[in-house]
Amino acid sequence: MSSEKKYSKFTTEFKVRPDDIDLFNHVHSSTYFDYVLAARFEQMEQYYGMSMEEFLKQGYGWVVKTAYVDYKRPLGLSDYFTVTTGIIELNDKGCRVEFNIKNKKTHKLCCDGWFDYVLIDNQTGRSMKLTGKMIERYSI
Amino acid sequence: MSSEKKYSKFTTEFKVRPDDIDLFNHVHSSTYFDYVLAARFEQMEQYYGMSMEEFLKQGYGWVVKTAYVDYKRPLGLSDYFTVTTGIIELNDKGCRVEFNIKNKKTHKLCCDGWFDYVLIDNQTGRSMKLTGKMIERYSI
Amino acid sequence: MSSEKKYSKFTTEFKVRPDDIDLFNHVHSSTYFDYVLAARFEQMEQYYGMSMEEFLKQGYGWVVKTAYVDYKRPLGLSDYFTVTTGIIELNDKGCRVEFNIKNKKTHKLCCDGWFDYVLIDNQTGRSMKLTGKMIERYSI
Amino acid sequence: MSSEKKYSKFTTEFKVRPDDIDLFNHVHSSTYFDYVLAARFEQMEQYYGMSMEEFLKQGYGWVVKTAYVDYKRPLGLSDYFTVTTGIIELNDKGCRVEFNIKNKKTHKLCCDGWFDYVLIDNQTGRSMKLTGKMIERYSI
Repeated sequence: MSSEKKYSKFTTEFKVRPDDIDLFNHVHSSTYFDYVLAARFEQMEQYYGMSMEEFLKQGYGWVVKTAYVDYKRPLGLSDYFTVTTGIIELNDKGCRVEFNIKNKKTHKLCCDGWFDYVLIDNQTGRSMKLTGKMIERYSI
Repeated sequence: MSSEKKYSKFTTEFKVRPDDIDLFNHVHSSTYFDYVLAARFEQMEQYYGMSMEEFLKQGYGWVVKTAYVDYKRPLGLSDYFTVTTGIIELNDKGCRVEFNIKNKKTHKLCCDGWFDYVLIDNQTGRSMKLTGKMIERYSI
Repeated sequence: MSSEKKYSKFTTEFKVRPDDIDLFNHVHSSTYFDYVLAARFEQMEQYYGMSMEEFLKQGYGWVVKTAYVDYKRPLGLSDYFTVTTGIIELNDKGCRVEFNIKNKKTHKLCCDGWFDYVLIDNQTGRSMKLTGKMIERYSI
Repeated sequence: MSSEKKYSKFTTEFKVRPDDIDLFNHVHSSTYFDYVLAARFEQMEQYYGMSMEEFLKQGYGWVVKTAYVDYKRPLGLSDYFTVTTGIIELNDKGCRVEFNIKNKKTHKLCCDGWFDYVLIDNQTGRSMKLTGKMIERYSI
């Protein structure tokens, strides 16, 4: 995938839930994945005007193809944090989304990385080509 | 980190739990992280002779520094699968562990990737140097 | 619901997964629910000869109507445990299933309680009557 | 436990996270437990003036002794909901907390029930007597 286009970045705020805390008394390492997922779902609805629910109704889903996460500092119980995400590459097979998670109080970086998402047909589980309309909606 | 040494690989078998299934009717993407974690805990105890519990008792913990996961095929409800892991680099700051997860029935690859782990002092949360004994135990 | 029939009890063994541990360094309280669910799924397949997958394929699902859990002693990291369940009441609307979870090492009771399950139509989400065949299969 | 005192009820609003959805395409049954827990943590801090973090710093924890949940209607992806909780009984061993969870859009009841909580010493895991100050703080 390659692209020279500059896409928008969006920021969503959440709070650590008690059940997110693990045996090291910090947010569990795999839970940051779920925070990014939650942020993208919010942002798809709020900013891209095509929510995951809409994709699901049409029989499509977005699934993670590749994930890369670099952990810097853990979040702890009841911490508020922001998840900033933005597409860095987009084509008719999917997109790469960069993200960072920051502690809202300290403004320090907790983790960052990227995800490659592909569009799938939920019946067959096979990857699908994005329609022109989808690409247009997400090219902001 | 660099190393010419060849380390052992270990395989552990698990079964998908119903609560692992997500909105796409497959194992949730972040849950594969937890499968690798579970496999490492088993293998630390069984093969390396120094379990996570022993590290925890001594005030240490292993935490993920960087994670890279490449998803190929999802696991579904009640699937049996294997998690094979092995150290590929080891020094006094931590180790890189490669893994793959395979569907036991089809023998097909579900996902693979690697994790960089660092040893931390659980009181301070800061990274620690591995002792000679630890390196020795894990150099198999 | 009332019944004089005596139904069988079945026991399944599991191991605590690292991601089950919570901020109190024990298995998270809601996770015992998931252990009972996992045990029932196993037992539906193994002993009743009609697995959850089969129900799902036919468009049905079993969902929890009421849950009662009495916690005695927590499970900890890497503990092995047994989940014993058995129907205590069964009619054409659903069933009440009693359960207990015991630490395999100490044989001590971790928690016990019961769940009322109802059969639903997965399309409508509405409760369904059990067929004669279903009642027969589960009347062991 | 018995009491004639009337205690306050508090309401907190949340949103369903994508990772809360399970194989039936609804919020997973055990996750409602976590919603009540999250609401209590919020409310302990905001209204009772003695947060869970403060208890934890003093070496105490609140754990669930008994749980009773009656499920009415499931929550779905991205639903907003309220969790209303209130103490109905309080003594020097613990408290019973009633709760209900309502879909914010439809105002319909999703589930209700109660939890008995006991105070424990986190080192020993044994139950502790509440101090006069704790009872006073929570007697609102």
